[in-house]
Amino acid sequence: MIKDKIILGIDPGTTIMGYGVIQIIDNKINMLAMGSIELNKIEDHFMRLSKIFERTQYLINEYKPDEFAIEAPFMGKNAQSMLKLGRAQGISMAAALDKDIPVTEYAPRKIKQSITGKGTASKEQVAGMLVNILKLKALPKHLDATDGLAVAVCHYFQMGKPQSQKSYSGWGAFVKQNPKRTKS
Amino acid sequence: MIKDKIILGIDPGTTIMGYGVIQIIDNKINMLAMGSIELNKIEDHFMRLSKIFERTQYLINEYKPDEFAIEAPFMGKNAQSMLKLGRAQGISMAAALDKDIPVTEYAPRKIKQSITGKGTASKEQVAGMLVNILKLKALPKHLDATDGLAVAVCHYFQMGKPQSQKSYSGWGAFVKQNPKRTKS
Repeated sequence: MIKDKIILGIDPGTTIMGYGVIQIIDNKINMLAMGSIELNKIEDHFMRLSKIFERTQYLINEYKPDEFAIEAPFMGKNAQSMLKLGRAQGISMAAALDKDIPVTEYAPRKIKQSITGKGTASKEQVAGMLVNILKLKALPKHLDATDGLAVAVCHYFQMGKPQSQKSYSGWGAFVKQNPKRTKS
Repeated sequence: MIKDKIILGIDPGTTIMGYGVIQIIDNKINMLAMGSIELNKIEDHFMRLSKIFERTQYLINEYKPDEFAIEAPFMGKNAQSMLKLGRAQGISMAAALDKDIPVTEYAPRKIKQSITGKGTASKEQVAGMLVNILKLKALPKHLDATDGLAVAVCHYFQMGKPQSQKSYSGWGAFVKQNPKRTKS
């Protein structure tokens, strides 16, 4: 049984950032927030990064999550795109790091698989399952908003299972656990 | 004439992070700090990111820089490496963003050119010039430590010139200057 927790899920893309906040009470999931930011309306790359940081900080301050889950694609062919995506991921992680919130990354395929049972599920299939799981009245106007929510729900589903994803609990905890690995 | 300023320079690589802090008084440069962290001694990728964030935050709190300059290679062939590099850059930028410190990025070639007059200068040549410019008594034990210092000095040299590099002054300033570009 998972203890009551609030989970913030973020999908920090370079064109759209999706986010979702869920609360686990008595092993039931309630959605607290869901939304997206259309970063492609912001021309400047750095201003997109600022917006990601600002919104992630806002969500953390507003909902005080116990856990932070991030959709982190790590495969790609275009080096330039991957650098931009890496910056977006790093910026978003930093907001969680700053508050010592444990961070867990999930590959897109893992999220789809966790929600629908199928790693190749479409965005619509994932959204449809989320409507059922969270008893939402309707799909959000922008389906991208469900991407952040999906990673939060995926994290909840994975929490009880043996660890199969990259998970981190901050530098402070790491130093205590690994005193010999951190000389510098 | 540049007003008195403190500049923090960071070279956030994935194996070594170099940093330098300089103070400009009456158009003279004084070095306040210089150092490096051997990130390759930390096995875990995320813990490296945490260390970059933690050290950048520490330097900002300690020296209260007015400007933040970052060495930001943006060319590379390997997508996986570029993602990691992007994360390191994003994490480091976030620490500056968090304190509303203007961020300027410089390509490695630009930094070498600014310090030595030659974009293809070696690390030793850059370090040698820094010893002269800053009247240092000796080269640092680890030459990598001069990489962060070099970007700080480069930023000082560029500050009086017409803008030729990417420079940002934070989301708050951007919104005020571009009210129509930030709908989301």
